[in-house]
Amino acid sequence: MTQVYNFSAGPAMIPQAVLDQAQQELKNWDNLGVSVMEVSHRGKPFMALAEQSEKDLRSLYNIPDNYSVLFLQGGAKGQFSAIPMNLTQKGKALYLTSGHWSKMAANEASKYTEVTEIDILEPQSEKTAVIELDFEDVAEQYDYVHYCPNETISGVEIFDVPKVGNAVLVADMSSTILSRQIDVSKFGIIYAGAQKNLGPSGITIVIIRNDLIGNAMSMTPQVWDYAVQQKADSMINTPPTFAWYLCSLVFKHLLDLGGVAEVEKHNIAKAQRLYDFIDQSSLFSNVVAPQNRSRMNVTFVTGNEELDAKFVAEALENNLQALKGHKVLGGMRASIYNAMPMEGIDTLIRFMKDFEARYA
Amino acid sequence: MTQVYNFSAGPAMIPQAVLDQAQQELKNWDNLGVSVMEVSHRGKPFMALAEQSEKDLRSLYNIPDNYSVLFLQGGAKGQFSAIPMNLTQKGKALYLTSGHWSKMAANEASKYTEVTEIDILEPQSEKTAVIELDFEDVAEQYDYVHYCPNETISGVEIFDVPKVGNAVLVADMSSTILSRQIDVSKFGIIYAGAQKNLGPSGITIVIIRNDLIGNAMSMTPQVWDYAVQQKADSMINTPPTFAWYLCSLVFKHLLDLGGVAEVEKHNIAKAQRLYDFIDQSSLFSNVVAPQNRSRMNVTFVTGNEELDAKFVAEALENNLQALKGHKVLGGMRASIYNAMPMEGIDTLIRFMKDFEARYA
Repeated sequence: MTQVYNFSAGPAMIPQAVLDQAQQELKNWDNLGVSVMEVSHRGKPFMALAEQSEKDLRSLYNIPDNYSVLFLQGGAKGQFSAIPMNLTQKGKALYLTSGHWSKMAANEASKYTEVTEIDILEPQSEKTAVIELDFEDVAEQYDYVHYCPNETISGVEIFDVPKVGNAVLVADMSSTILSRQIDVSKFGIIYAGAQKNLGPSGITIVIIRNDLIGNAMSMTPQVWDYAVQQKADSMINTPPTFAWYLCSLVFKHLLDLGGVAEVEKHNIAKAQRLYDFIDQSSLFSNVVAPQNRSRMNVTFVTGNEELDAKFVAEALENNLQALKGHKVLGGMRASIYNAMPMEGIDTLIRFMKDFEARYA
Repeated sequence: MTQVYNFSAGPAMIPQAVLDQAQQELKNWDNLGVSVMEVSHRGKPFMALAEQSEKDLRSLYNIPDNYSVLFLQGGAKGQFSAIPMNLTQKGKALYLTSGHWSKMAANEASKYTEVTEIDILEPQSEKTAVIELDFEDVAEQYDYVHYCPNETISGVEIFDVPKVGNAVLVADMSSTILSRQIDVSKFGIIYAGAQKNLGPSGITIVIIRNDLIGNAMSMTPQVWDYAVQQKADSMINTPPTFAWYLCSLVFKHLLDLGGVAEVEKHNIAKAQRLYDFIDQSSLFSNVVAPQNRSRMNVTFVTGNEELDAKFVAEALENNLQALKGHKVLGGMRASIYNAMPMEGIDTLIRFMKDFEARYA
């Protein structure tokens, strides 16, 4: 089979070792003679998988004991609704916006609470940069402060944690979870759709400090009521068992690699190599300030839309898939999540050099 | 590999041919060199899959053109919330209850609308039976009338469609969808979690008459707003692509078998054979009236809890899995959805005969 590299922003690459195992045991999981898709979520084998997967995630992220881990459905966008439904008491929330996804989260929240938006991007600079992360003086008047540490569309990542004093910090980590070390104790809620760094689409992980559980609005759907799901071990109804299983394999794989510290080193090296090439290129450029360049989604343009389209098409012919930028921004985007090996970066750079030689 | 038969109520058996194909192409779907789990839902290959799967489902169920088909997340229990959120205008809904799941649906709906519950089970009979299905005189004062045509826990199935005049009939078909022919035009909404007859858990199908779309309450989460999802082809966020793919394979498989008419014949024959055995047994009995015996979930007891437990344990040793009844009812339950072959029924009956000879 030809080696292809898949730069999809999500659903994204899954580690090869995980796919190998999933394929091998697809019809006979845990020596039961049936697929993991076919077993009851309430049976001992699946319950053991669920328990172990939570342990492994806790270990990977050093999740403190006073936090719960929920495995839910509905995607991060489902959590855009669930978070205000579960956290609103004062009736005010602060949303720090840095791009498409953080704005979408704010829009949805405004159905349920009074939303204050603060745009934290530098408005005047040539390079996109985050300018403001200290909200200690205002944060505590809000039920929570929400932000998105990695904007997949523009490729803007926020490495410092916003200062919010004793207020509750909520982070949509869909596209950065487990890519670098974080101090979970600084967050009230961390949530993430799985389809970038955790597994296939269809499962959403919520890491939540226990004291924030139990205040859901009366109209909160029970499948998204954190108290209900916490009590039911995320099984108030049938969970997405196959997606959960895949996540469990990814967690084990990351532990085998040495945990998040090792994964982070690898991600830094991958991103650095690609940005270094872009910075010296006479054809390609990236408009994000170095301190906010995403390690997960590297955006670049030639400055010519036709040439961008040609690049994407020729790359595909060369087995470099899904390099087209998001439709709201255009250009190119290489999503290089945890599962992307350095060989993928090197192959992409070789192709970019070749393209540059022909078109610059 | 030992032949096992899996009588799980859900997640349940998947057709062997579907698992074979899924395994074979797990790492190279559609000749793309990557897994179906790894491709963008917005790319042409997956969009083609989504489109074809809807066509196949429309063909299987003769879904009229004035109905939309949505592929959502959250399970049937998610729809317990979404339905009143989307359909409430007058502020009143009628729930016909016939067991655990219809009651759960009514409970959840009462967060959003004024719920009237009518228990449609015969209260005095030795055998559980549905006595009342004509609500034409009262139905139209409600936004909709909800019922559950198959109660998985008790094994009670309602084959006739309730009469509701011009009112909107909503059916939770999670455990009966595609098991028998229905006239979709009699329903306002049909919904179903996939994990019994459609595929793996984690995807929920909603078949909805178009005139019912567009009236969601303002607090409806956008991922469950039928108008939003209809407009976005069920992709307002990343859908559960692997589960959707599996469903698409199941639809093709059912078409290959000759469609729902053929599947129904097979299901009638399977259920008949098992109930016939139970009815002549000196040890096992079923308490559902013949006209309401589920073709999907066959419940039975020995009348002795210890003996029931022994049966379940010995059956498992003989590769007959997941025969334990639901915890709220006890006893035994053989879930024999579309994917269960007649050989599974025959093997179960042989084991029951043997057990009976030893313990009756």
